[in-house]
Amino acid sequence: MDETATATAAMAVGQLRNFAKAGRKIAGAGMNYKALLPILKVDAPKEPVIFLKPSTSYITEGQRIVIPKGFAVNEEIELGVVIGKGGKNIEVGAAMDHVGGYCVALDMTATSELTTARSAGLPWCIGKGFDTACPVSRFIEKSEITDPHKVQLWCTVNGQPKQKGNTDDLIFDVPQLISFVSRYMTLEPNDLILTGSPPGMGPVHPGDTIEGGIEGLLSVKFAVTSE
Amino acid sequence: MDETATATAAMAVGQLRNFAKAGRKIAGAGMNYKALLPILKVDAPKEPVIFLKPSTSYITEGQRIVIPKGFAVNEEIELGVVIGKGGKNIEVGAAMDHVGGYCVALDMTATSELTTARSAGLPWCIGKGFDTACPVSRFIEKSEITDPHKVQLWCTVNGQPKQKGNTDDLIFDVPQLISFVSRYMTLEPNDLILTGSPPGMGPVHPGDTIEGGIEGLLSVKFAVTSE
Ligand SMILES: [Mg+2]
Ligand SMILES: [Mg+2]
Ligand SMILES: [Mg+2]
Repeated sequence: MDETATATAAMAVGQLRNFAKAGRKIAGAGMNYKALLPILKVDAPKEPVIFLKPSTSYITEGQRIVIPKGFAVNEEIELGVVIGKGGKNIEVGAAMDHVGGYCVALDMTATSELTTARSAGLPWCIGKGFDTACPVSRFIEKSEITDPHKVQLWCTVNGQPKQKGNTDDLIFDVPQLISFVSRYMTLEPNDLILTGSPPGMGPVHPGDTIEGGIEGLLSVKFAVTSE
Repeated sequence: MDETATATAAMAVGQLRNFAKAGRKIAGAGMNYKALLPILKVDAPKEPVIFLKPSTSYITEGQRIVIPKGFAVNEEIELGVVIGKGGKNIEVGAAMDHVGGYCVALDMTATSELTTARSAGLPWCIGKGFDTACPVSRFIEKSEITDPHKVQLWCTVNGQPKQKGNTDDLIFDVPQLISFVSRYMTLEPNDLILTGSPPGMGPVHPGDTIEGGIEGLLSVKFAVTSE
């Protein structure tokens, strides 16, 4: 483990602005909106479903989402939580102290690869981790979001409404996700937790423009291209 | 993506010695020894089975493997390949130029978590990525291993022989693994590719000592403890 793992002091917000360059861990929560369960016809997971994306999957505004040859890819709009203070076995009650800020993220997901992998019991790695699979907004200061469980997310593709959801619908909330992940994997400053995506995600194609954001706060736009 | 992603110059070997501190990506290959197939009663995978471990799972000699509460954990001795020169879409024929060196690694695997995850089509993340799940040896200079496909690996638990295998038995060899991973995920200097484990892996318990290595080159020893 890196020495940052044991750092207990919160990192200065100025440094967290570069989370997409400095961050080493992206832990995403799957199936984390209640409204998704009847659509997917699944029961609520008993504990958070956590997958990893590599830091090489980050892109920021101005960069394009590149769909690998032969892949079918969905967009998933999500609230991202940027860790400010690292830790291990973080208690739910203390978890918000570890939040350094937020971002809006697109958890780009290769459904083609994920469907095959899931039915064979194989890793989600390629389906979630391909280059450009983690477009993120600018860093959002912690103070810009009064309550992370009252965040209205939206996403359009080519101007057509696709996703809408409020983080009040999360199955596992932000402190529960932080606590669960840190139970197994030490969190470090600049790590990102993706909190899951509300219903409406669907396939995107080269030439599309994905726009999404948090109502009343900010929006991001990413163009989709082919390899 | 980080600017290092586009770095084409090989990193000085002196810097790679710190791969376990500086590295951001650990990509492991599963089911990659021919001798495993009849034991697991599975066909050879058509392409490499790749999973991720987070960099927080690294430990080096002197540190202990900590088994999380309630987990059943296997040891897997593996040849690790340390990337010296990053790249994307690396051709098989050029892949060895991207190798900076090697290590001996234990791909510690929580079979308890992995079995449940696999049968439900869920991510391998926790089963492969818990803290201390990636013990590694010192950096091995590239020149110390003349042929990475003639490496004799061994592993004992409390002095009892457990694993033995030669990398001449790999299903996907080192260049093929580098090429495949880099097809989807840009490789960066200090990234690690775990090449898979030969038969004989089995459960380890608090109090055990795992010893493993490369015949005629080096060995490492890690104590196992409970949380
Ligand atoms: Mg995974
Ligand atoms: Mg998602
Ligand atoms: Mg392995």
